[in-house]
Amino acid sequence: MKKRIVIALGGNALGDNLEEQMTAAKITAGAIVDLVEAGHEIAIVHGNGPQVGMILTAFETAAKANSKFPVLPISVCVALSQGYIGYDLQNTIRMELDKRGMKQQVAAIISQVEVDPNDKAFQNPTKPIGGFMSKEEADALKAQGVSVMEDAGRGWRQVVASPKPQHIVEAGIIKGMLAAGQIPIAAGGGGIPVAMKDGQYHGMPAVIDKDFSAAKLAQLIEADMLIILTAVEKVAINFNKPDQQWLDTLTLAEAEKLIAENHFAKGSMLPKMEAAMAFVKSSSAKAGREPPSALITLLTKARDGVAGKTGTKIVANL
Amino acid sequence: MKKRIVIALGGNALGDNLEEQMTAAKITAGAIVDLVEAGHEIAIVHGNGPQVGMILTAFETAAKANSKFPVLPISVCVALSQGYIGYDLQNTIRMELDKRGMKQQVAAIISQVEVDPNDKAFQNPTKPIGGFMSKEEADALKAQGVSVMEDAGRGWRQVVASPKPQHIVEAGIIKGMLAAGQIPIAAGGGGIPVAMKDGQYHGMPAVIDKDFSAAKLAQLIEADMLIILTAVEKVAINFNKPDQQWLDTLTLAEAEKLIAENHFAKGSMLPKMEAAMAFVKSSSAKAGREPPSALITLLTKARDGVAGKTGTKIVANL
Repeated sequence: MKKRIVIALGGNALGDNLEEQMTAAKITAGAIVDLVEAGHEIAIVHGNGPQVGMILTAFETAAKANSKFPVLPISVCVALSQGYIGYDLQNTIRMELDKRGMKQQVAAIISQVEVDPNDKAFQNPTKPIGGFMSKEEADALKAQGVSVMEDAGRGWRQVVASPKPQHIVEAGIIKGMLAAGQIPIAAGGGGIPVAMKDGQYHGMPAVIDKDFSAAKLAQLIEADMLIILTAVEKVAINFNKPDQQWLDTLTLAEAEKLIAENHFAKGSMLPKMEAAMAFVKSSSAKAGREPPSALITLLTKARDGVAGKTGTKIVANL
Repeated sequence: MKKRIVIALGGNALGDNLEEQMTAAKITAGAIVDLVEAGHEIAIVHGNGPQVGMILTAFETAAKANSKFPVLPISVCVALSQGYIGYDLQNTIRMELDKRGMKQQVAAIISQVEVDPNDKAFQNPTKPIGGFMSKEEADALKAQGVSVMEDAGRGWRQVVASPKPQHIVEAGIIKGMLAAGQIPIAAGGGGIPVAMKDGQYHGMPAVIDKDFSAAKLAQLIEADMLIILTAVEKVAINFNKPDQQWLDTLTLAEAEKLIAENHFAKGSMLPKMEAAMAFVKSSSAKAGREPPSALITLLTKARDGVAGKTGTKIVANL
């Protein structure tokens, strides 16, 4: 059955530099066009961790060298990264479509994602961005009011808030593209974080988790399935222990029980499970279609996963 | 009568820094929403001169400071600038639409524009980009095979080719958005310059003139009118001379005659006239619609210009 699907791609899976990004984008393009060829409607959300870090570092370096140079807010850096990654993805997907004689159009849409300025995340910034610093550099930034944190023994980094997405400003355009048989790339890097104030969306000092933005997009465009790609084919409990067990299908209630039992690592599988569950919770079954589901699997297993052959699937009820 | 219109906005009109860009974008948004409110379908093409220069300089500075840092090709810098400027434009247009209670959706589409790798422009790069250098720095770059040029007594700059646009890869998406009553921002900075080789579009070392890309877009989406915004309300002959004369309506034949008489400055009004004429030449009249025309005027006079009250209009025949 033809499905409307949102795929969340990891920013790290896109590579750390231009060459890696192009190679990774080609593999990604193949897997995505497989799904399009199978008749599904696909919207793509990508991460931007390494890329937004690179952009931030470039502008910070230029601002250090020349005091007149603008320091870009993180929201603007995300906008630049959407152009940077979107270009590569749409270029390589176009190539793959052409190779198979397919005429579908594909393009990245610059996307603003609304967050709540009162989101508790703003009181406790935890998302590291940009390059590593010495303790002295970190202390100097901290004195300027910038949040910093020691990152897993690797050095100090700037940290920003990671609030939950409330709305995708350009959702109507993304939905229109899908209805027209086109392939939108949207909410890249989790989307440009904005909050409404005095009748205008203002950029916010935040990075939105791209899996949660993908879940929000999937809800807004009434997708049948959210696919969150990760480094394992299935989710496991007792991960890396003798009694490790791969999971096939989970109901929301089962997933909540496993979370309560601390089976999923913070900052790793836990937020992916939470984003998957957020979509399933926010969506209702539509007549003549399969009930909404979320799938966590490998990029190269996405097609088999959609066909019900692998991956870990989260559904409301069995 | 309701028209489908492509507007070409100058990159310089968007300001030289973040604050100027936001202020300029607000004025621009007002003028554009005026046209939408009057019932017209609007697609926006913007320049990116100062912005792409800033991006190039930031990455050049970072690459000088750290040899591992990627040097971005100009095509990728254009992609970043589409995110940067697109975000500001769609943000401010959204605000203006909201203020007037209008529900139209607006977003920037990352756009690749195909050029001919055999375009003669590649043999003679003339478009200055990025910051100014000393003669010594310029000579060092030249030794690496980069084209450089002395820019009007202000110092040395890198120069790239400015080939003509042959096709806009994402034109189908832009057309679909217009048909759906949405406002596309597309081919920003003239578009990401690409050429087809071995079944893939490859980035090219070029900057495409945004007025020509706007003319190409207007042709592809079957626009009724192309508006090229500039710093004067109307085009003049004998500009700044005692016998200066403002022009109202010109046929292609009249415009060609004036060009042959050298009335229009190279790198200034001449390419704008040529872009305007390119659209009119490439488009044919459609039943029940006004014949295609191009208008050259000020941003703040765009609405009056569309209503036939001002600006210089180029048409195929009278």
